[in-house]
Amino acid sequence: METTAATFFDLVRADLEEVEARMRTGPGGHHPQLDDAIDHLLTSGGKRLRPILVLLTCGMLGADCDASITLAAAVEMLHTATLVHDDLIDGSLIRRGYPTLNTKLSLGATVLTGDYIFARAAHLASGIGSKALMRIFSRTLMTIVNGEISQLFGTEVEDIRQEYFDRIYAKTASLFEVSCEGAALLSECDSEVVGTMKSFGYNVGIAFQIVDDILDFVSEQEQVGKPVANDLRHGLITLPTLYYLESNPEDGHLHDKLVQRTMSDKTIEHLIQNIRNSGAIDQALEQAEEFTSTAKKLLASMPSTPEREGLYELADYVVQRTI
Amino acid sequence: METTAATFFDLVRADLEEVEARMRTGPGGHHPQLDDAIDHLLTSGGKRLRPILVLLTCGMLGADCDASITLAAAVEMLHTATLVHDDLIDGSLIRRGYPTLNTKLSLGATVLTGDYIFARAAHLASGIGSKALMRIFSRTLMTIVNGEISQLFGTEVEDIRQEYFDRIYAKTASLFEVSCEGAALLSECDSEVVGTMKSFGYNVGIAFQIVDDILDFVSEQEQVGKPVANDLRHGLITLPTLYYLESNPEDGHLHDKLVQRTMSDKTIEHLIQNIRNSGAIDQALEQAEEFTSTAKKLLASMPSTPEREGLYELADYVVQRTI
Repeated sequence: METTAATFFDLVRADLEEVEARMRTGPGGHHPQLDDAIDHLLTSGGKRLRPILVLLTCGMLGADCDASITLAAAVEMLHTATLVHDDLIDGSLIRRGYPTLNTKLSLGATVLTGDYIFARAAHLASGIGSKALMRIFSRTLMTIVNGEISQLFGTEVEDIRQEYFDRIYAKTASLFEVSCEGAALLSECDSEVVGTMKSFGYNVGIAFQIVDDILDFVSEQEQVGKPVANDLRHGLITLPTLYYLESNPEDGHLHDKLVQRTMSDKTIEHLIQNIRNSGAIDQALEQAEEFTSTAKKLLASMPSTPEREGLYELADYVVQRTI
Repeated sequence: METTAATFFDLVRADLEEVEARMRTGPGGHHPQLDDAIDHLLTSGGKRLRPILVLLTCGMLGADCDASITLAAAVEMLHTATLVHDDLIDGSLIRRGYPTLNTKLSLGATVLTGDYIFARAAHLASGIGSKALMRIFSRTLMTIVNGEISQLFGTEVEDIRQEYFDRIYAKTASLFEVSCEGAALLSECDSEVVGTMKSFGYNVGIAFQIVDDILDFVSEQEQVGKPVANDLRHGLITLPTLYYLESNPEDGHLHDKLVQRTMSDKTIEHLIQNIRNSGAIDQALEQAEEFTSTAKKLLASMPSTPEREGLYELADYVVQRTI
């Protein structure tokens, strides 16, 4: 697991170890190769931001500790399962510096391992025994998968900005949202608090993905383990490109050429440099900061606890991080 | 949908139409190509035995009608999702006489459509609002996927008969079991009744799969839409082969040669004819009838309703069917 110096991590360190253990410990009776695959996936890291959101929200609102840990594990398992299928579909070879599962297993074994982790996520969530939670949990899986399908099949895009925000909601913010909403549901708080925390998760999630999309442009290849502007190379328009397109309306066909992938490699390299050197990166970062600022304002009405401070810090971390 | 003349079908015909509608109607907001894919899958048929089991059990025990329909839809969607991924992994081109989804869509789109249908199944099940049901539902998905993984990775087989029954439990009987157990859980009956109906589902499910494995041997290619003894050709030992091996111990290496797929095509054709002409088929059918007989005995303690009669008939149909 990648650790950060942030104190929000210290607040949940002990519980997070329990979460790790719960993700690795299934109900038994399964093929030993599944343990190996799950172990490989979990050892390959990740920031564990979704379980941390669950644990901090639960801590702040006084939810049952055991249920919090189970929800945190369920949310991270759901995330892990979607990555297994994503990497297979995209043919990705590396994630977080580790070989992806699809480089180690056959197509069939990779599909089924993903399925098994989905099932484990649902089984963990069902163990909490909250009907409302199960409802939003399965709904989120539909949202995530539908987002991927829409990306794959393509959609008639009328508003490329709206399309971007819909896409990053499905891809990332929906699970951040359900982490905070689900955690609030486990606490004995009223529906207004649940709604506020849902919105907090949404805003932090959108900010997180915008920053991911910025890092895709500004990081060096060694840092992110994939080519710079990988999304753009795959015809995927993210916020920096979107701002760049808006500031350079003279090339009206740029968007279509990108999406249809009819640009030469040389032109793409040139465009990437232009975007990196333009104000689009800063503009995107400002947009991300607006979302975290909205998120932080939502915390004002929450109980003043160390965990609330942790959530403030986490919101800041999301836009300040460099990996 | 393939219909049968059996009267058990008439008992649930109207509800089954509701089940079909519920399977096709998602919560909305998804990509239109998903509707097309789901429509193709559902139009491609299937006997709908799992939803029929749910509806008959619910009817017999007086469960809420709306919840019954939702559970029936959830169970069939779960079944459908596993078939989508199975066909992809096996590279199957035809199922029930229709082209499989993987012949129509890309790898990615097929994986994701399966995932989406899993999510829809979980979402339907969660809508019933029964904690216990959600628990066994997600557990069943784990069982099914684990069974497929074990088949793919292979296992050290100490007892080939036990391995066969474990495999067909995971593949088929587990979902028949959860159909009846889940239906009983929706009714206000005591845990003994739930356990009895769970056992009924298990026994009918095992019988159903044994008969499927027999039909794989005795049907003509045109009927089943795939080569006769397709399993054997893929190194998969089913009950007829198992009995044949037991009656012909003089060729002690036959099992290993089959599993390792080191036999020539000619030798396999010869073996298939030998199995078809041996007593192994009848022996397997007798075994299936034992399971349905056990199942029917379990119904004796159930409320004497038309639906109970339907379940008796369904148990008989499972071993008498020719497709």
